[in-house]
Order: sequence, then C-alpha cells, then structure tokens
Amino acid sequence: MGENDLPILVDLYRNVFFDPDEGEVVILDRRKLPSELVEHRCENHEQVARAIEKMVTQSLGVSPAGAYGVAIAAYRVQDKPEEEQREHMRKAIERIKNTRPTQTSLHHLLDEMTEIAEKTISDNGDLFEKMRKKAYDWTDTIMETSRKLGEHASKRIDDGDTILTHCYGGPAIYFMGDYARKEGKEIDYFCTETRPYLQGARLTSFALSDGGFETTLITDGMPAHVMREGHIDKFVTGADRISLDGSVANKIGTYQISLAADRHDIPFYAISYTGPDPNSPDWRSVEIEMRDEKELKSFRGIQIASEEVKGFYPAFDCTPPELVEGIVTDKGIFEPGFVEDYFDD
Amino acid sequence: MGENDLPILVDLYRNVFFDPDEGEVVILDRRKLPSELVEHRCENHEQVARAIEKMVTQSLGVSPAGAYGVAIAAYRVQDKPEEEQREHMRKAIERIKNTRPTQTSLHHLLDEMTEIAEKTISDNGDLFEKMRKKAYDWTDTIMETSRKLGEHASKRIDDGDTILTHCYGGPAIYFMGDYARKEGKEIDYFCTETRPYLQGARLTSFALSDGGFETTLITDGMPAHVMREGHIDKFVTGADRISLDGSVANKIGTYQISLAADRHDIPFYAISYTGPDPNSPDWRSVEIEMRDEKELKSFRGIQIASEEVKGFYPAFDCTPPELVEGIVTDKGIFEPGFVEDYFDD
Repeated sequence: MGENDLPILVDLYRNVFFDPDEGEVVILDRRKLPSELVEHRCENHEQVARAIEKMVTQSLGVSPAGAYGVAIAAYRVQDKPEEEQREHMRKAIERIKNTRPTQTSLHHLLDEMTEIAEKTISDNGDLFEKMRKKAYDWTDTIMETSRKLGEHASKRIDDGDTILTHCYGGPAIYFMGDYARKEGKEIDYFCTETRPYLQGARLTSFALSDGGFETTLITDGMPAHVMREGHIDKFVTGADRISLDGSVANKIGTYQISLAADRHDIPFYAISYTGPDPNSPDWRSVEIEMRDEKELKSFRGIQIASEEVKGFYPAFDCTPPELVEGIVTDKGIFEPGFVEDYFDD
Repeated sequence: MGENDLPILVDLYRNVFFDPDEGEVVILDRRKLPSELVEHRCENHEQVARAIEKMVTQSLGVSPAGAYGVAIAAYRVQDKPEEEQREHMRKAIERIKNTRPTQTSLHHLLDEMTEIAEKTISDNGDLFEKMRKKAYDWTDTIMETSRKLGEHASKRIDDGDTILTHCYGGPAIYFMGDYARKEGKEIDYFCTETRPYLQGARLTSFALSDGGFETTLITDGMPAHVMREGHIDKFVTGADRISLDGSVANKIGTYQISLAADRHDIPFYAISYTGPDPNSPDWRSVEIEMRDEKELKSFRGIQIASEEVKGFYPAFDCTPPELVEGIVTDKGIFEPGFVEDYFDD
C-alpha cells in the first residue's frame, strides 16, 4: 500500500466500479479474500444481482453494487427506443431490489434511481451517464460518511490503545485508527475471527494490516481472556441497527464481548452508518435473522458436525444500552440513553 | 447405538485397545471424527508415541494410549533375554513420557508401570500380560471415575434442563446426562464448536447425539445470546486444573461463557477428573499454554487470514471462583471456596 492509498477493502471506489473499456461492472470478490484478489466481472444487471446474492460483495459493498447494476442496465439499452429503455430499467431495478428484500438503504437508493431514470428518459438525456454518476456519488457518500464516523470515533481513542473489533465494521473501523494515527496516537487492533463466516479473519484483519496497523487475530472465545490479561483498551464495532432505547443490534457475538468488556471496565462504542432507526423503539422490536444451519455445520464445504446434530444460527444479537459507552453517528457520539437527540435539529 | 451401548467416543475401551490377532494397538482416530470412523493401528511403541504427538487421540484417550504403548513394547520383547527386555522397556517408557512432558497423570502411570515391569522381569513373569492388564485396568479406572463424576453432576440437573457445554469434557459430560435420563429427567444439550480445533463440533456434539440426546451446535460467539433468549439452564464443562482458591482452568472460552452465565443467573459446574491440584494455590500459578499461531490462522489447511496478521492463541483460560457454582469431583461436589476440603479424610 502506497502512503496515500487506502487498503483495497476500505477503498469502496475499488470495490465496485464501471470499466468503460470493457463495458463491465467490476466487483472485488470478497469471498476469495485474503488469499486472492479476484475481480468479479459482470456484463449485465442479472450478473450483478447474482453476485450480490452469492455474497461476492457484502456489507457496505452491496448498495454501490446495486447502483452499478442499474447503471449497466442503462448501458445495455443506450441506443434502444424509449419504451424499451423504460421496460428494461423497471425490470432491472426490480431484480436488484429482490436480492436484499429487507435492506432499506438499498431500496431508497433504487427508488431515487427510478425517478432519475424516468425523468432522464423523458428528457431524452444521457441515461447511462446519469445512472453511472449516481452510483459513483453514492459510493462517495458512503466514503464521506465513513470518514466522518471514523473521525468522531477517533476522539475516544487514546495514545497507546489496543482496539478490539468484531466482524467487519466497514471503512469507519479503519478511518478511526487512521485519524487517531494522524493525531500522533499509536494504536493497534485485535480482531475476532467471527465464525461462521469469518469476516473478522478474512476481511477486517486484512483491511487493517493492509492499512499499516499491527493487527492480531483471536477466536471468538478469547476476548474475555485477552481483556483480563490487559491486552485491550477499547471495544469498537459497527452496528446493524440502533434502537431508540440505545440498544445495539450487530453481528452475533457482540453482546457476549460487551459483557466481558463491562467486567473489565473497557468501554464499548458502536458505529452506526445510518443513525438510530426511528421505527425500532427497543431491542424487542429487532427481529433476529435465523440463518441456515448448514452454514454453521460446515466450513468451506468441510463437514464439522454429524448429520444428527442440529445447528442454531442467529445472525445477530442485541447489546442492551447499559453495556454501551457511546453510539457513533455522522452527527457525533451519543450516550445510549440520549440517542433520540440524533433527530433534533 | 444399541440400547446398552455407549457412544463410541465415550467408550474408552473402544478408543484404545490391544488387538491380539494382529498384535497391534488400535487407536480411534479422533482427527477424522465425525465424518469417518478410522482405526489407527500401531505395531510398536514408537508408532503409538507418534500417534499421541499427532493428536490421533487426545484428552482422556492419551494416558490409556500411553499405557498400551508400553504394553506393545513388552509384546515385542516377550521372547528376548532379560537385559534386552529391561533396556527396551526403559527406552519405550521414556519415549512415551516425552510425548506429553507436563501431563502428570500420564507420568505417574508410567512410573507405576516401570516398577511393575522391573519386578515382573526379575520374577520371570508374563511381562506382556502384566502390562496389557495394567493398561486395561487404567482404562477401567478412568471409566469408573467418569461414571462417578457424571452421577454426582446429574444431581444438579433438573427435569427439562438444557445444558450448555464447551470443548470436549470427556465421558463424564455424557454420563451426567445419562444418569439424569435414567432418573426420568428429560434433558438436552447445546455445544459450542470450540475453535480453533473444533472439539465441541467434532467430538462433543458427536458423542452426545450418538448417545441419544438432542444436541444443538452453536459458535463460540453465541452463548450469551442463547442464554438471553432462555435456551440454557446449566453450563457444565470439564476442567484442566482446579486451583486451591477454586479457580477453574479450562479450554479457552470457558471464562467468557461463565461471565454470560453469571449475567443470566445460570449456574456453572466444572467437572474435574483429578480433583484440585495441591500445587496450584490460585489462578496466578496456572501457566497458560501459548500455541502456534498457525493453528489459528488456518482451518484444515485453508488459510483464513493474511500473512501480515499475527495470531494469538492461548489454549486455556481461568474462571475465577465467584463465577463457579460447584466443582464436581470423584468425592462429590464442592463449592469453590471449600475445594480444599477435598483433601480431608
């Protein structure tokens, strides 16, 4: 990594982009990381939709991929009659929406793109260019938010800190350390491996070590022990949803680590890219996604438990507000009891 | 499994034994479980020593394997002159001792076998038969202890309980449920997978489901969440060492789960096959074995983290006495603060 470069996983512009020479959407294949850097190339929106479904990209890579999927749909009908364009765009956007039926930020983005597309077709404008620009601008927005979140979070990081993180909390986890480092603070990271999908081992530890931080990997059973031995100063993760009572829904395992952090007086900060969810009053309103037991009972195709054993795979858990020191948002850091202040002007 | 049979992993007589037809020691290869039941066959003590070093068997399988290694050494020199017998036995026992330089129970056993061997050679007795019998009797002793521990532990199990266990706590974990079941209590088990070596997924869940219990597998990050959701009633594990202050050293991850159990008012019982260690005053005197980071950074040969990332792999942790409800020994269950009473007559 050059001095002014970002780690590739953090640099969303390099995670999903349009290659004008080939007329293809290029997606960094996160499934192959960290052993291989593979470009997954898509010639049309159907291929992009399948890439999203097959987890070629994940987390904050999904909505840019969706947007570029819409862009390549526009690219394919550039020279077609207006009605054909409308029909193709409608189908493409519907197809991409269905890849993640519950991801509201993706759906909002696609609704916006639908409006722009319809107006551009009516105005006889450059449909592909408008869609491509929207996809790029959206990537830009996520990167700007990530930097802002990282900058806010870095204020709570002290010189000499070792930060434990769980799962892959997106670019903000890197930017937090990067801002701290620019202020002269020396910090390093511990990452849990995050079974069963191993995002911590494959993505987080890769992004952070690629970004020049000393990075240490542990299993999901080790946080309490390494805290007791004095290795950890702060616990910081991303957050899938923040309820209005200050509860934090995040990758399964977060709650358990927050209990260990509490025992050892280590503050826990959760970074939210979207702010609190106004439709989620408390943790009881958060439905925990249950995933297929097969994902838990095997590892890259190797069976680790016998057929007779049942697998139980809740994908998320909720950490109650009393275990959370602060919720990091684009508007600053809120104590969990005051998270509704986010909506004040 | 027939009605009166034990699960194969619990049945130590089938884990390591002498096959008189072939003149070989047979060891159940735990590395291949649960996908394959493979017999690892050894023609001499050197092959047995290597099998122990290569983790063909582990935990309570190690000392019986060592004893049968001595037996096959005797088998190989049955018809040799006295001096050759002495020399061969001395070397064989030394070799087997060195497979586990710190396992005191194995060393005590081998010292006993040395004495018996020397006396038998002097008396011109049946050396092989004496050694084979000692190996069998030792297996018998472990099985008897396991049944006794299981019976004591079962007294704390209530009808309808779901028991969470971590790593592979040996036959006593099965016998606990079996005694409870015989008393008409309906119980089932949750097992953590226990990364990085996956003993929970590969061994414990296999033994328990093979033994007829409904068994559910979770990752090491899930215990706190499943406790919060009300799935767990008791937390029970084996113990590698009990200090005189009532601290429990066990597989890494135990401490973290005990914190979650404490939070949710779930009692934690630790089962000790050897009783408290009179040489260990408290947890500070327990040296935590640090293992090779390679074991953590790969999974069955598949690399899961990049070269630049460091792995940190403490094999054990210590749970402080205030998080332990009871320590199960062959002499009954002790509160952690009264564990020294074990030595009273």
